[in-house]
Amino acid sequence: MTELQNFKEVIDQYKVIFFDSFGVIKNYMGLVPGVKETFAYLEEQNKQYYIVTNDASRSPLQLAEGFHKMGLTEIQEDHVISSGMLAKEYLDLKVHDGIVAYLGTIDSAHYIESSGLHTLPVNSINESNIDQVNALVLLDDEGFNWFSDLNKTVNILRRRNIPTIVANTDGSYPLNVNEVSIAIGGIASMLESIVGKRFIRFGKPDSQMFMFAYDLVRERTPTISKSDVLMIGDTLGTDILGGNKFGLDTMLVFTGNTLQHDAEIRINSLGIVPTYICASAAV
Amino acid sequence: MTELQNFKEVIDQYKVIFFDSFGVIKNYMGLVPGVKETFAYLEEQNKQYYIVTNDASRSPLQLAEGFHKMGLTEIQEDHVISSGMLAKEYLDLKVHDGIVAYLGTIDSAHYIESSGLHTLPVNSINESNIDQVNALVLLDDEGFNWFSDLNKTVNILRRRNIPTIVANTDGSYPLNVNEVSIAIGGIASMLESIVGKRFIRFGKPDSQMFMFAYDLVRERTPTISKSDVLMIGDTLGTDILGGNKFGLDTMLVFTGNTLQHDAEIRINSLGIVPTYICASAAV
Amino acid sequence: MTELQNFKEVIDQYKVIFFDSFGVIKNYMGLVPGVKETFAYLEEQNKQYYIVTNDASRSPLQLAEGFHKMGLTEIQEDHVISSGMLAKEYLDLKVHDGIVAYLGTIDSAHYIESSGLHTLPVNSINESNIDQVNALVLLDDEGFNWFSDLNKTVNILRRRNIPTIVANTDGSYPLNVNEVSIAIGGIASMLESIVGKRFIRFGKPDSQMFMFAYDLVRERTPTISKSDVLMIGDTLGTDILGGNKFGLDTMLVFTGNTLQHDAEIRINSLGIVPTYICASAAV
Amino acid sequence: MTELQNFKEVIDQYKVIFFDSFGVIKNYMGLVPGVKETFAYLEEQNKQYYIVTNDASRSPLQLAEGFHKMGLTEIQEDHVISSGMLAKEYLDLKVHDGIVAYLGTIDSAHYIESSGLHTLPVNSINESNIDQVNALVLLDDEGFNWFSDLNKTVNILRRRNIPTIVANTDGSYPLNVNEVSIAIGGIASMLESIVGKRFIRFGKPDSQMFMFAYDLVRERTPTISKSDVLMIGDTLGTDILGGNKFGLDTMLVFTGNTLQHDAEIRINSLGIVPTYICASAAV
Repeated sequence: MTELQNFKEVIDQYKVIFFDSFGVIKNYMGLVPGVKETFAYLEEQNKQYYIVTNDASRSPLQLAEGFHKMGLTEIQEDHVISSGMLAKEYLDLKVHDGIVAYLGTIDSAHYIESSGLHTLPVNSINESNIDQVNALVLLDDEGFNWFSDLNKTVNILRRRNIPTIVANTDGSYPLNVNEVSIAIGGIASMLESIVGKRFIRFGKPDSQMFMFAYDLVRERTPTISKSDVLMIGDTLGTDILGGNKFGLDTMLVFTGNTLQHDAEIRINSLGIVPTYICASAAV
Repeated sequence: MTELQNFKEVIDQYKVIFFDSFGVIKNYMGLVPGVKETFAYLEEQNKQYYIVTNDASRSPLQLAEGFHKMGLTEIQEDHVISSGMLAKEYLDLKVHDGIVAYLGTIDSAHYIESSGLHTLPVNSINESNIDQVNALVLLDDEGFNWFSDLNKTVNILRRRNIPTIVANTDGSYPLNVNEVSIAIGGIASMLESIVGKRFIRFGKPDSQMFMFAYDLVRERTPTISKSDVLMIGDTLGTDILGGNKFGLDTMLVFTGNTLQHDAEIRINSLGIVPTYICASAAV
Repeated sequence: MTELQNFKEVIDQYKVIFFDSFGVIKNYMGLVPGVKETFAYLEEQNKQYYIVTNDASRSPLQLAEGFHKMGLTEIQEDHVISSGMLAKEYLDLKVHDGIVAYLGTIDSAHYIESSGLHTLPVNSINESNIDQVNALVLLDDEGFNWFSDLNKTVNILRRRNIPTIVANTDGSYPLNVNEVSIAIGGIASMLESIVGKRFIRFGKPDSQMFMFAYDLVRERTPTISKSDVLMIGDTLGTDILGGNKFGLDTMLVFTGNTLQHDAEIRINSLGIVPTYICASAAV
Repeated sequence: MTELQNFKEVIDQYKVIFFDSFGVIKNYMGLVPGVKETFAYLEEQNKQYYIVTNDASRSPLQLAEGFHKMGLTEIQEDHVISSGMLAKEYLDLKVHDGIVAYLGTIDSAHYIESSGLHTLPVNSINESNIDQVNALVLLDDEGFNWFSDLNKTVNILRRRNIPTIVANTDGSYPLNVNEVSIAIGGIASMLESIVGKRFIRFGKPDSQMFMFAYDLVRERTPTISKSDVLMIGDTLGTDILGGNKFGLDTMLVFTGNTLQHDAEIRINSLGIVPTYICASAAV
């Protein structure tokens, strides 16, 4: 593990950069200072970059628009890879008809809609349509009544033997500097343990997330290899573990979940070692 | 394991009977047929009995009154041992002042109130009183807003390093023949995994539940030993595992969670073997 | 949580002291300095004390003899409560005939022998006797061939639906200041997950361990209550969690598993809070 | 889920077939009857096929030679994808110098050797070389002394903060029709829980295994999509779950881990649903 004073020290060793979004590019205080310059530099140097995010609550287009509003106009929709895209790919490939029931906001569901499938919130499932439910997707922790809809979800899964897709593996996410919020990945673990079935999880650290981004890279530039790619993240258990496992170099930054004074103890206790540690992704 | 045609075949081998409540004495259809006669017989024979239940949502008095309404007038308050009683004992012994925050109904909280302690629902905890919160008790899955209060609970536990007591270890409970409801024990596991702390769980299969009942037995009849006691339950993972571990003989009945045609496969796959299996606790 | 300069500050508030053994009374360097004086003081003041240890590798007599060799001649066999005693009680109450197969040393098995039962090491189980095996006990990590006997154990448990008793819940134990050894509790978790069955675990933090000691206390002195008892240990997840849950006051010492400079971070991250912290159990 | 009488009914819908090895192509009784004809048909029809196996104990060449000895001369080395290949890729990309310590046979280690790296069995690690150990790889359950080398592994991981790669995620594997053997994946879970670190696991159901095979397919035939590929396996939790998650159609066969009379109950209890079920992969 190498401690960097500035991301600049290594940026030119890589042809492609993968960025986590929350905690790397932005956080509760807005855009991370200096990151705008990083993207300007990447554009200028003609380097590829992708945002690789465990966020299934919005579409890549909406995620890109969020960056634009903060002044990061460089990031286009086709540079954003979300775990929601993997949920959508799964449904496209594996569920050919019927209803896809979901937990999440209407916006999050809109994105996974495919031709031939009908998405319905869990609270709209009833005796008249339950036998057409062919998949369940957990998208977001908002947009539904936890008490009635989580209980209803358990009973749908007891009755219908269908795949359950978890489009975000995080257990919780930060709300502000002091508070966190339970994420749909945490809720999913509770439901999974109650119904005793195996859910299908997308999102870092799972490799499928990295593979999706890496395939896009190679479509544009077939000569690129894994050693040309650096993954930057603020979370050891998702960004760094997943990046390492996929064979990428990794950089842990201190602008999100991991604070500088905790980093060493966490790296040692989890045994997840980034290639670099650096205060931020600014150049 | 011995298969009984009727509970009568072995009842006289025991001086004390421990009964689980839901699934043994009553179920969604009301009182289990023939169980009234069982209690009449126990009274007539002067045998001791206790109801040992993972139900922290009501006080022993309220639980006894529930039996009376169904016609089981024999069962008095002092024969009912609930996991809520263990939560109360813990607070009495270990928490000497301040606020006990809880998730559950007002009724469930009323019971755990002790002199010197002030119980408050999680939704009443705020900046002005959070520093007085000295324990958190998870009592029931009803009586609070899941979305706001579960998120609030996570943040209370991140801020205050206090004991969290789970007064019911069940992950779910049956609502009717087809549907289950998520129980506070299932919610507790989700919260525990998100905050990364170790909660204190009372309720079967934990031995403390059986010890509490057994201590009452020996207070009345000091000569009784564990081999004089039979535990009757409908659930392998709580009633039977806990009874076995405590050193009691156990009887699995088919009037609740375990159906007769599933019993063998479940006993074999879990490796939890009751002393007897019997259709019901009726005589 | 109160930080003590010396155990003396609170010792007179208690009538009974429970001590963990390794890490509290002795460690790799021998007897903990000053602990001999603690026992002399307890004797002089006529206070009761018990050693409550997750050690099923030797009998209480052998454990007491070990203390005597180190110069702690006060500790008699009947003051030593080991998790092996609970395994023995279980077999006495619940297994009436046949073979008890075990993993551990001959010494550890000698202790659990009961009239009517025949103990045999796992490596002596074969086609001619496997159908008489009525229980399996995991006693110690030594005394058997890990490769052949652990594989054999898995296959015994796939063939015989019998109770498996784990007489020590610890996952590992310290060998010296730098090294640990895998304990039978760690091996048990691997076997449990491979065979998919539920084992019966004795040993702290489980309440049954504390109950066993507390019952002995009350036999001698019926007026004692839980608030008269202090549990002293070096491990948060066993001694302190278990003592707290049972309703006892607890004292964490820094002569074993928990080092003083780590204590705060561990207490906060696990949420297991002792009543007192103190450098050692010396007075 | 569609029940097939014969694999022939659907084979022509696919351009590529992925086969699990043990339980699909061969089992304890040798080659699965009729499978030789399946491979002859695939060759004749010019369909691609890959063996995708969680076997890191031998190299692809050795695995292919094993098939040849059984008469399956069609299967060449470059059609065999093993989880050991992913371990090797990880080391090539992420570990640039020093010693790679391993648990497994010499054969299994020979395969992962890379230029610049020195592989050493765990039992050869000592004070003189431990500081050069830069990765640990768990390859096979044979080739080492379980007692001494597993304990040594725990202490290496406590001292060196290095990646641990598990090259086979299976917890156990069948030895014959009645007996199983503990696999290195089961041992890995025990070690992981004792040292408290996160290991890196390759092998089905993880997507990286499928991605590796799928990348080879697309190198040869870029126009192929996931819907052209069928995964055939005998195990729900690895072959079928992993294939489904990667977006492939899947076929469960009854020549290995899953018996026909158990299939329905297992599919329902795990919630892992194959596209097809079929007696075997024979045509």
